[in-house]
Amino acid sequence: MGEAIRIIGIDPGLRRTGWGIVESLGNSLRFVASGTVRSDDKAALATRLCQLHDGLAEILHAAMPHEAAVEQTFVNKDAAATLKLGQARGIAMLVPARAGLVVAEYAPNAVKKAVIGVGHGDKKQIHMMVKVLMPKATFDTDDAADALAIAICHAHHRQSVAYRMALAYSDERPFGRTKHVLAL
Amino acid sequence: MGEAIRIIGIDPGLRRTGWGIVESLGNSLRFVASGTVRSDDKAALATRLCQLHDGLAEILHAAMPHEAAVEQTFVNKDAAATLKLGQARGIAMLVPARAGLVVAEYAPNAVKKAVIGVGHGDKKQIHMMVKVLMPKATFDTDDAADALAIAICHAHHRQSVAYRMALAYSDERPFGRTKHVLAL
Repeated sequence: MGEAIRIIGIDPGLRRTGWGIVESLGNSLRFVASGTVRSDDKAALATRLCQLHDGLAEILHAAMPHEAAVEQTFVNKDAAATLKLGQARGIAMLVPARAGLVVAEYAPNAVKKAVIGVGHGDKKQIHMMVKVLMPKATFDTDDAADALAIAICHAHHRQSVAYRMALAYSDERPFGRTKHVLAL
Repeated sequence: MGEAIRIIGIDPGLRRTGWGIVESLGNSLRFVASGTVRSDDKAALATRLCQLHDGLAEILHAAMPHEAAVEQTFVNKDAAATLKLGQARGIAMLVPARAGLVVAEYAPNAVKKAVIGVGHGDKKQIHMMVKVLMPKATFDTDDAADALAIAICHAHHRQSVAYRMALAYSDERPFGRTKHVLAL
């Protein structure tokens, strides 16, 4: 059977960064934990980035996931909002990478396709399918549910031929605490 | 006379992040060091963010500045570029903040005003004035020169009435290794 791979999914945001941890073994998925790291919106930007960093670092330290997956942020039309999101996303990618985890990136429609079967659908459908795939899953916010969906997406993709091919051609060890990063 | 305050200015960018360190004592400015942290543009995003983080952390550790200043990134019309810059900027603000430094933010025209006297001007004028203000200053890239200009801007602003007022109303110690952040 091999060993279960523990995956953390992260849905980055400056105000709220959702996270969700699942274990993948063969075709089975197990819910481990989920939650939301918040930053104080009255604090200065640098302080808020520290809060996101410390919150995520604490979760990684406690849960010890093997691999990470982060949503490829939707680039909207508001440049100021995009910059804010970019800053939070920088932290969301840095923390697992510094811990030596694989950090995969998935576009929102890849996440939808992995969870609900098609590349479009609303948040409700995603949350419902997260509950169908992992009946024991709980989440305190939409961001945590989205983070679980990202983790599920990575669990599916990491078994795909394309993913294994990419790893085969990488100069780093395929799994475990390596600094290997894939954009799928 | 008091003690000289050592300031690090940072001009964030994913490919190249410029940094410049100056010492401010009364009205005098002294050049300490400058340089450029580069990330490998063939590496994955998370790896590049780690490279920026480690490079900046190393400089902070070696130079031990008291305060930091980061340019308020120009938000251009290309959302993908803004997102990239945002990610690098998140790291540029996180590293000094985690080290407990004051992290001030300055808009590009505030930097120009502090260095060349008016809120507009090209890169050449900024670099020339950096050399006029600190004849011993050297820089390997435009980004390092810009970072020195940001540090000079902070040296000017931190003596202003507005800055001191802001500190007076903050609940943290004004100077030294506090987590105080101002956007000016």
